[in-house]
Amino acid sequence: MIITFKQTVTPEIKHAFQTKFNQLHKQVFIFGLRMAVVGLDHYPFSDQEAEAIDQIIAETPSYVQASRRFHPEDSVIKLPHSEIGAKTFTIMAGPCSVESEDHIRRMAEVAHQGGASILRGGAFKPRTSPYSFQGLGEEGLRYLRKAADENGMDVITEVMDESHVPLVAEYTDVMQIGARNMQNFSLLKAVGKTRIPVALKRGMSASIDDLLNASEYIASGGNTNIILIERGIRTFDHQYTRNTFDVAAVPVLQKLTHYPVIVDPSHAVGAWDLVAPAAYAGTAAGASGMIVEIHDHPEKAMSDGPQALKPDTYLTMTKRVAALRQCMATWED
Amino acid sequence: MIITFKQTVTPEIKHAFQTKFNQLHKQVFIFGLRMAVVGLDHYPFSDQEAEAIDQIIAETPSYVQASRRFHPEDSVIKLPHSEIGAKTFTIMAGPCSVESEDHIRRMAEVAHQGGASILRGGAFKPRTSPYSFQGLGEEGLRYLRKAADENGMDVITEVMDESHVPLVAEYTDVMQIGARNMQNFSLLKAVGKTRIPVALKRGMSASIDDLLNASEYIASGGNTNIILIERGIRTFDHQYTRNTFDVAAVPVLQKLTHYPVIVDPSHAVGAWDLVAPAAYAGTAAGASGMIVEIHDHPEKAMSDGPQALKPDTYLTMTKRVAALRQCMATWED
Amino acid sequence: MIITFKQTVTPEIKHAFQTKFNQLHKQVFIFGLRMAVVGLDHYPFSDQEAEAIDQIIAETPSYVQASRRFHPEDSVIKLPHSEIGAKTFTIMAGPCSVESEDHIRRMAEVAHQGGASILRGGAFKPRTSPYSFQGLGEEGLRYLRKAADENGMDVITEVMDESHVPLVAEYTDVMQIGARNMQNFSLLKAVGKTRIPVALKRGMSASIDDLLNASEYIASGGNTNIILIERGIRTFDHQYTRNTFDVAAVPVLQKLTHYPVIVDPSHAVGAWDLVAPAAYAGTAAGASGMIVEIHDHPEKAMSDGPQALKPDTYLTMTKRVAALRQCMATWED
Amino acid sequence: MIITFKQTVTPEIKHAFQTKFNQLHKQVFIFGLRMAVVGLDHYPFSDQEAEAIDQIIAETPSYVQASRRFHPEDSVIKLPHSEIGAKTFTIMAGPCSVESEDHIRRMAEVAHQGGASILRGGAFKPRTSPYSFQGLGEEGLRYLRKAADENGMDVITEVMDESHVPLVAEYTDVMQIGARNMQNFSLLKAVGKTRIPVALKRGMSASIDDLLNASEYIASGGNTNIILIERGIRTFDHQYTRNTFDVAAVPVLQKLTHYPVIVDPSHAVGAWDLVAPAAYAGTAAGASGMIVEIHDHPEKAMSDGPQALKPDTYLTMTKRVAALRQCMATWED
Repeated sequence: MIITFKQTVTPEIKHAFQTKFNQLHKQVFIFGLRMAVVGLDHYPFSDQEAEAIDQIIAETPSYVQASRRFHPEDSVIKLPHSEIGAKTFTIMAGPCSVESEDHIRRMAEVAHQGGASILRGGAFKPRTSPYSFQGLGEEGLRYLRKAADENGMDVITEVMDESHVPLVAEYTDVMQIGARNMQNFSLLKAVGKTRIPVALKRGMSASIDDLLNASEYIASGGNTNIILIERGIRTFDHQYTRNTFDVAAVPVLQKLTHYPVIVDPSHAVGAWDLVAPAAYAGTAAGASGMIVEIHDHPEKAMSDGPQALKPDTYLTMTKRVAALRQCMATWED
Repeated sequence: MIITFKQTVTPEIKHAFQTKFNQLHKQVFIFGLRMAVVGLDHYPFSDQEAEAIDQIIAETPSYVQASRRFHPEDSVIKLPHSEIGAKTFTIMAGPCSVESEDHIRRMAEVAHQGGASILRGGAFKPRTSPYSFQGLGEEGLRYLRKAADENGMDVITEVMDESHVPLVAEYTDVMQIGARNMQNFSLLKAVGKTRIPVALKRGMSASIDDLLNASEYIASGGNTNIILIERGIRTFDHQYTRNTFDVAAVPVLQKLTHYPVIVDPSHAVGAWDLVAPAAYAGTAAGASGMIVEIHDHPEKAMSDGPQALKPDTYLTMTKRVAALRQCMATWED
Repeated sequence: MIITFKQTVTPEIKHAFQTKFNQLHKQVFIFGLRMAVVGLDHYPFSDQEAEAIDQIIAETPSYVQASRRFHPEDSVIKLPHSEIGAKTFTIMAGPCSVESEDHIRRMAEVAHQGGASILRGGAFKPRTSPYSFQGLGEEGLRYLRKAADENGMDVITEVMDESHVPLVAEYTDVMQIGARNMQNFSLLKAVGKTRIPVALKRGMSASIDDLLNASEYIASGGNTNIILIERGIRTFDHQYTRNTFDVAAVPVLQKLTHYPVIVDPSHAVGAWDLVAPAAYAGTAAGASGMIVEIHDHPEKAMSDGPQALKPDTYLTMTKRVAALRQCMATWED
Repeated sequence: MIITFKQTVTPEIKHAFQTKFNQLHKQVFIFGLRMAVVGLDHYPFSDQEAEAIDQIIAETPSYVQASRRFHPEDSVIKLPHSEIGAKTFTIMAGPCSVESEDHIRRMAEVAHQGGASILRGGAFKPRTSPYSFQGLGEEGLRYLRKAADENGMDVITEVMDESHVPLVAEYTDVMQIGARNMQNFSLLKAVGKTRIPVALKRGMSASIDDLLNASEYIASGGNTNIILIERGIRTFDHQYTRNTFDVAAVPVLQKLTHYPVIVDPSHAVGAWDLVAPAAYAGTAAGASGMIVEIHDHPEKAMSDGPQALKPDTYLTMTKRVAALRQCMATWED
């Protein structure tokens, strides 16, 4: 149920409503004159109560804090070296895995040169098989942080495990939740208790509503510093691309939510020579940024080599993305 | 089996090989020094025969004429008022259905104003239910042709039925095969016997190879004037979009085939306010053009109203698409 | 709109309603006291008209003749040697393609021995590639008919082409519409004009409603001798099975329609050693029969060898299916 | 790489090989004469080493302990009141959530009456929205255990959170990993460190290989007491069923792995009147058991009411399942 109060409503009246609904074990969210009561469609208001109310929409929102309905302006996430959301375009780049101190440092330089303000790199890797390389752990986090600092960059890295949240939080500016963990509700709650920005990847078979509901698990802990990532979905078609890049999810999400939406062309297509066209598509569709994998020797990469861009390809791509953004700069909604 | 002959090969020798394979009931295609023998992996060549051969690849191609391997340059389709393929970008626009003489004329003017050189409009409509509007038939074709001629445009329209091919051919410059008929092999063969360009839409659950094999049915009749259209695929996710726009299919197809690849953002997303972002995405991904539905009163459209662009939105979109294309003009592969 | 008349309604009154709606270009179907008006939700009935009416449901049915709502009893298709629907279980078996007179005769004997009353075999084959074997054509139909007659069996064979309908109709008892042609509306209309039973296969990405709407194209020509076939759908998962066998579609369809529903385990799984378990599953789910592919030398089959059952496997399977049916015989709904 | 040793090999030789590969940071599994070396395709064996070897298959298995190749016999999981696997058929039944002490006790009686030897019930519930009922927690576990004990049943319940593993382990006989957590690798490792049987549900978009690789995370901790559950996958088709029940996954998995495979018809179809046909299908396909949701007042259920069977329907269904199993008892592979 969504209640719109009259302009004359006082904080006390709103508080009284809230208390009443809380007693019914309903969660209540207040946004100015609007109140969202989750999971309640009707209520027998007294005449006196009804006087404070302008309109009632008998609809149970499944996500509230993510909804643009209650938060019409774009959210902007601010980091030491980056801003994500609204009119900005943010590039996050780096290798799939942190492989060594030297390697991540070289990759950071390349990433930065291409305009990336955020360095990516996995220290804890979710791998389909337990026998694949699982990441360098804390050592990797240290290298990653150092390489970012040396280049005036922020850090994004994945957290896979509730118990790692404090450790990862020490080293990173953005915690990434991977596609496989999009509905790992315990992990979502754990990062929701921090105030560190969270980049939430869409699950392989997650609907748009599933993604927004998952974000609500983070927000319900008080952390609304959320970035959503479209990274391809699983469809019948995976002969030439690893996933199907759902580029239209960008404007769909932008209609529904105020959180920044970025694209991950690397995972969406899974083949290096398709990454750039996918990145251009995502940019032109209006994404607030992108996250891409780069590697100087993809054939030797410890994970996801086939989709990594070599430095030259990356630098050409980022130049073109910048040109597209400039072309789009004058477009008004 | 793909045979590469030595430079010294004579036409007679190639012909002798061809005859031999034809006697085995195998189809043979010759492209310069290369010969594709469909459905044959090995052959016990005599020593004398082997002398003419440089290399044998024991691989059975399932599509040959579509393959860029044998036809490295982009194909270009030439129409009286348009070129499709290579470095061009072609806009096809018009209403979903031809509704009346007056309406298609008004829509043609709008389409043309936005830079479209090809007018679209359905006279025979494939509808999920037999009780839905099925199109104006030949009357519609007449109106469509006339409206295009008045605006110096070419015509594209769908042919659904083998028996309609001669009739539709009288009025149109491009025959469209709809997604539902992508594997209607009788229809494909029928349009393959004409020399009128064919725009083949990808089926809802067609893989890339399915699409290319379907094009081969057209080409095997001798008609290689083929345009491929990505129009969205059916996936688990159809709450906010009608289909999932597989934008990465554009570069995938461009790697595999020399035929022009265009996008249909209208059907891909199925909601007018998502059409423009999808069109920008398709453009930036490198498509050779797009086909879009427009209508001055979408709420009264006889079919597919929800995805039709109003004239103003269409004109804004085409301006932006032109700007993107200009931005991309300097990009070399 | 669905109108339920009062018991006292006369045929004249119903006829008057029908005429009125036909004048509005609406299709009308009468089933006893119920009238379905397609594509009309509301109508300003006069007081006099309203007197004849018991109830109005403001709902536009997209399929009518298929709907169990208007036809609560199971439909039964009667052929010279078979009955399909209601409490029966009908086996259709034979090779994918008719390969030779001798071969189809041997296969007919095996099919019959396993309890099949209908012989299947393709004379016109829809193949993904135009270079694959396309069938023996009329010669194949002759062999098929003869082999069936010699064994006291009926014939089912695919018709792919509107222009072949009269030819195929001469030889077959049931015309099959393949999955790729499920929305080839011209073909559906053509078989709808005959009175020969039609077995309509679900398209690879057809929803349940798509299938029922497609059946309505056949029915709208007056031919309601329709059998529906679940043959697997295309999903992300095609590593070990060719399609995903949607066994739950059997009870779903049985709720919605009165037409018999049978399963095609061969195409659903596409691997011979999985066909039997899928057939048992389809039987237990309540299907009215099944259609399976058999071959004595699958490795030499001209099409779909990998999914063909050898005679021994087929005979074991049909014995078990019969046992399951016997076990289920006492179950009441 | 899979090495088959000669019959004459000694444990010392095998150990020497193992040590060598471990030094290369490769995981090694020994099954009698066979050794699987994960992630290594070739190795330059000395002549002396080669003498011990019968055959080398240069293939990197991604899952080893799950593979039937190394463990040809069916695994059987033994619990106080149940056996799962091989020729047995095990029923797990109960409400979706534990709702109260009284309710779970009543449901346990019904479950038991229908032949279930394992009681299911969620105490920690993974819900799409954070505002939905999240379960009773430890209180729920206590009620569940007590209700099972009173009826001589075992317990299965979901664990969602690494930190809950010790708590849940105190109360349950089988720990269930839900579909959303199938690739929550931290959780898989945590339950892998226990020796409590784990029932692993297939993820909504998990391929068969994904599922087996996920099981390998559990097994690599030493816990090979694993049960696999097919519970429907996400496809384009979710109008009438919540998921698509992939019944053919049962025989596919049985070919590949020795772990017991059971079906969850409740989640697969998501609608109570389709559960029984799906259960019959799963039984006939050869599953080793099923897990179903029951509720005496589904309309008041705290979660998943629409798919819960009322006691009467459940009891009819289990009788029929028992009849099918009896019919199948004589079938030999």
